Amino acid sequence: MRILMIGDIVGNPGRKCIRDLLPKIKENYNIDFTIANCENLAGGKGINKKVINNIFTYGVDVATSGNHIWDKKEIFDFIDSETRILRPANYPVKTPGRGYHIFELNGNNIGIINLSGRVFMSDLDCPFQKASTIIEELRSQCKIILLDFHAEATSEKMALGRYLDGKASAIVGTHTHVQTSDERIFENGTGYITDIGMTGPYESILGVESEPVINNFLTQLPERFEVASGKVQFNGVVIEIEEADGKCKDIERIQDLHEF
Amino acid sequence: MRILMIGDIVGNPGRKCIRDLLPKIKENYNIDFTIANCENLAGGKGINKKVINNIFTYGVDVATSGNHIWDKKEIFDFIDSETRILRPANYPVKTPGRGYHIFELNGNNIGIINLSGRVFMSDLDCPFQKASTIIEELRSQCKIILLDFHAEATSEKMALGRYLDGKASAIVGTHTHVQTSDERIFENGTGYITDIGMTGPYESILGVESEPVINNFLTQLPERFEVASGKVQFNGVVIEIEEADGKCKDIERIQDLHEF
Amino acid sequence: MRILMIGDIVGNPGRKCIRDLLPKIKENYNIDFTIANCENLAGGKGINKKVINNIFTYGVDVATSGNHIWDKKEIFDFIDSETRILRPANYPVKTPGRGYHIFELNGNNIGIINLSGRVFMSDLDCPFQKASTIIEELRSQCKIILLDFHAEATSEKMALGRYLDGKASAIVGTHTHVQTSDERIFENGTGYITDIGMTGPYESILGVESEPVINNFLTQLPERFEVASGKVQFNGVVIEIEEADGKCKDIERIQDLHEF
Amino acid sequence: MRILMIGDIVGNPGRKCIRDLLPKIKENYNIDFTIANCENLAGGKGINKKVINNIFTYGVDVATSGNHIWDKKEIFDFIDSETRILRPANYPVKTPGRGYHIFELNGNNIGIINLSGRVFMSDLDCPFQKASTIIEELRSQCKIILLDFHAEATSEKMALGRYLDGKASAIVGTHTHVQTSDERIFENGTGYITDIGMTGPYESILGVESEPVINNFLTQLPERFEVASGKVQFNGVVIEIEEADGKCKDIERIQDLHEF
Ligand SMILES: [Fe+2]
Ligand SMILES: [Fe+2]
Ligand SMILES: [Fe+2]
Ligand SMILES: [Fe+2]
Ligand SMILES: [Fe+2]
Ligand SMILES: [Fe+2]
Ligand SMILES: [Fe+2]
Ligand SMILES: [Fe+2]
Repeated sequence: MRILMIGDIVGNPGRKCIRDLLPKIKENYNIDFTIANCENLAGGKGINKKVINNIFTYGVDVATSGNHIWDKKEIFDFIDSETRILRPANYPVKTPGRGYHIFELNGNNIGIINLSGRVFMSDLDCPFQKASTIIEELRSQCKIILLDFHAEATSEKMALGRYLDGKASAIVGTHTHVQTSDERIFENGTGYITDIGMTGPYESILGVESEPVINNFLTQLPERFEVASGKVQFNGVVIEIEEADGKCKDIERIQDLHEF
Repeated sequence: MRILMIGDIVGNPGRKCIRDLLPKIKENYNIDFTIANCENLAGGKGINKKVINNIFTYGVDVATSGNHIWDKKEIFDFIDSETRILRPANYPVKTPGRGYHIFELNGNNIGIINLSGRVFMSDLDCPFQKASTIIEELRSQCKIILLDFHAEATSEKMALGRYLDGKASAIVGTHTHVQTSDERIFENGTGYITDIGMTGPYESILGVESEPVINNFLTQLPERFEVASGKVQFNGVVIEIEEADGKCKDIERIQDLHEF
Repeated sequence: MRILMIGDIVGNPGRKCIRDLLPKIKENYNIDFTIANCENLAGGKGINKKVINNIFTYGVDVATSGNHIWDKKEIFDFIDSETRILRPANYPVKTPGRGYHIFELNGNNIGIINLSGRVFMSDLDCPFQKASTIIEELRSQCKIILLDFHAEATSEKMALGRYLDGKASAIVGTHTHVQTSDERIFENGTGYITDIGMTGPYESILGVESEPVINNFLTQLPERFEVASGKVQFNGVVIEIEEADGKCKDIERIQDLHEF
Repeated sequence: MRILMIGDIVGNPGRKCIRDLLPKIKENYNIDFTIANCENLAGGKGINKKVINNIFTYGVDVATSGNHIWDKKEIFDFIDSETRILRPANYPVKTPGRGYHIFELNGNNIGIINLSGRVFMSDLDCPFQKASTIIEELRSQCKIILLDFHAEATSEKMALGRYLDGKASAIVGTHTHVQTSDERIFENGTGYITDIGMTGPYESILGVESEPVINNFLTQLPERFEVASGKVQFNGVVIEIEEADGKCKDIERIQDLHEF
């Protein structure tokens, strides 16, 4: 099975890029199932009903997320009922929404998990322990398990990857909006990459206009950040999984540049 | 001119990798000048006289560094007299050593700057302002200016890169020990990559043994980290610069895997 | 000379408390000059023209501030012209407003400095170096120098206090909104207290309603914080200074509780 | 019942101060039970068998702790068997030692809990949820419940205090080494103070020599911190509890200064 995981889609430019490029990418890479991190989908911050529905229409099967998922209050209206949206599973119990779910495709169960790091981030439950518990629960029903680890620190990301080596099909990082070139398969068969990057404006800083970000660093005064415009980059990774045992057979980075 | 910049060299395995691979890499890529981040050179933490001299013998021309440069007290004995070692230039004035220097090669002056980020790091002087001031000073003597920005946050790194677009030949990130795949040339001719990665043990977490790092995340108790062994990865970037105007003509990532 | 320094005034309840209590406090304690931290004056976040003018009318002579000073955009309209408002002096050069100023009272020059800490706070210029530079500049004109150090970490606050012992009349901390009981006079004559506390709602968490703050800790989800109501606490410190040499002769904490 | 809680005892000077002053303080204040935070007992960092035994000999009944508890490796030899030592209860399950325990005194059960904050500190389990769970467990056996909340941020400390109002006899903060003057009894009968301070060298920065701390802030270079000498301050709080219902009837700060 070939699974496409797409890095944080940022705002309107990111969504248009998915709309325009996704069909062809899925065809070219022979994709069976598509997961996209959508925490920055609506104006760069959060998700609303309209844009997430569009994304599903464009061919995304499951939306993972991260710290920005709560930025638009509207999310609380539909996150409990929309099983295709995941939020980090290590938010406190009772948090609205779900952090993992099993999806069925051609007779195969695919377990998808979303977790957030803690280093330089919010004080959530331990992602290492949470991952163990969830995977143990999923294992009886799924051979294929994929995890979007939304985290900042490279040490925490690689540590989780190695900790879960042999227990999941692939651990894929998001959040930094910069794709890393360290994709690999660990020795027990788990695919890994520290960050799959961002799908959004190319002439930007992490998807937003450069000038206010630079000013903010220079002045330390509050600035208003807006999603940038112009060319859009597509960032993602294609993971090939052996359905018989859930092992990762291949992990390949994708970068594309789209002009409207 | 073709310049090789090498990602944080970690411990004995990293040094051996440089010793064994550097001559051939320099030949293959037609390298004129070699810069390597050496903050993790001695046992993964800091620099001592012996190992830094070895590194220069192996063919490195200039050593940049970062937060770990002070880990071995010995550094204070020679950092003032050894002009080939740079520490981040935005440490307070009066800090031992230097943060930038001009090197001469075949009649060309090459200005090398080392700076540290502040986001999730130490409270240093502003790297944006410091970079401006230093570049203004160097400009009259150097067409070619290269900057090793040792920083954690992708936003700070890309912001500095864009801020200096057109003012330096290349801005190259280090510190995360994971190479990114976002190398590019900004529109005013400055080469950029968020992180050039690490030269050190491949079966590791950022160069050190995996198990103590994983345990530290699981237990939150202090652990002793040791440089890992086994295969070694070489990470770096080749930057081609037009000598006439200092513009970046090409930036290419290098990854190699070395077994002893 | 007897100087009153008032801890962060929070919102409408804090302002009313000043209006109602300040005249009597000034009389009871024989106050010559009054300084108040006003970063939370308008709705708990920032300052606007109307509320700051009211505060001056109520008898405050100088307003210091901190990280929240920029929360209301209106501040940029008048911070350059209103010399009675100070913002932390270690913001980058060119930041609007001023970080220190000399005020004249009965033939005495009083130098007031406002600085921000860096530990767990914004990446500003070094408060230790900045304090030295400013004090050197003020010394020729002022015997009396007071510093509001708006900072989080007790180590940074006490370190600055001891660093400046003998160079200023008093170093007084703000920002944590909790008054400390460590007021003292260091051996070279500088008065010190880690934090003078907050003037605002008593039944609150740092001035804002308790429930959203508790929820935010429990859920890690965004919450909207509102200034609380009910009884109001007055927090401050009275500093007695020998005019002849600027030494601190006494430092006394004040706490009062006000019901409307 | 009258309970004495003593702020972080720092090194040899702190221990001597306890040895010399504790008997008289217990007599003067009519103390029935004594709890002391001992995370800095041995050389300012951690605990060893000898010094903790001395402290118990001097009259401390229970030792709470915090982030520094693990600094001396020796702790792992006896923390499991010594029930009078507590470490923060919100370390991951399976962490050596215990985070709460019931102590018996004259037919009364006293439940003591130790927790660590997370803001600006380690990534532990949620102290709010953990406190709820533990208190629910203790409630059936103890009317009197005391909690040492070892935390940095005033917001987190006061939030936990208010969250537990009516569920514990008192919530007492430690860790900042600076005593606050906000002791109070919340409306449902829980005593509270943000920080009870430090028992250790008075001419110091948080117990250690001032100069290296100041240098560290000025240079941002590593420094070696040593416990200071000279006069010693005693910091603590006396809590009077109604045995019938466990409510706090009085909370009084203690400060003393001891010269050898
Ligand atoms: Fe994102
Ligand atoms: Fe994110
Ligand atoms: Fe490094
Ligand atoms: Fe580093
Ligand atoms: Fe404030
Ligand atoms: Fe503040
Ligand atoms: Fe302590
Ligand atoms: Fe502590």
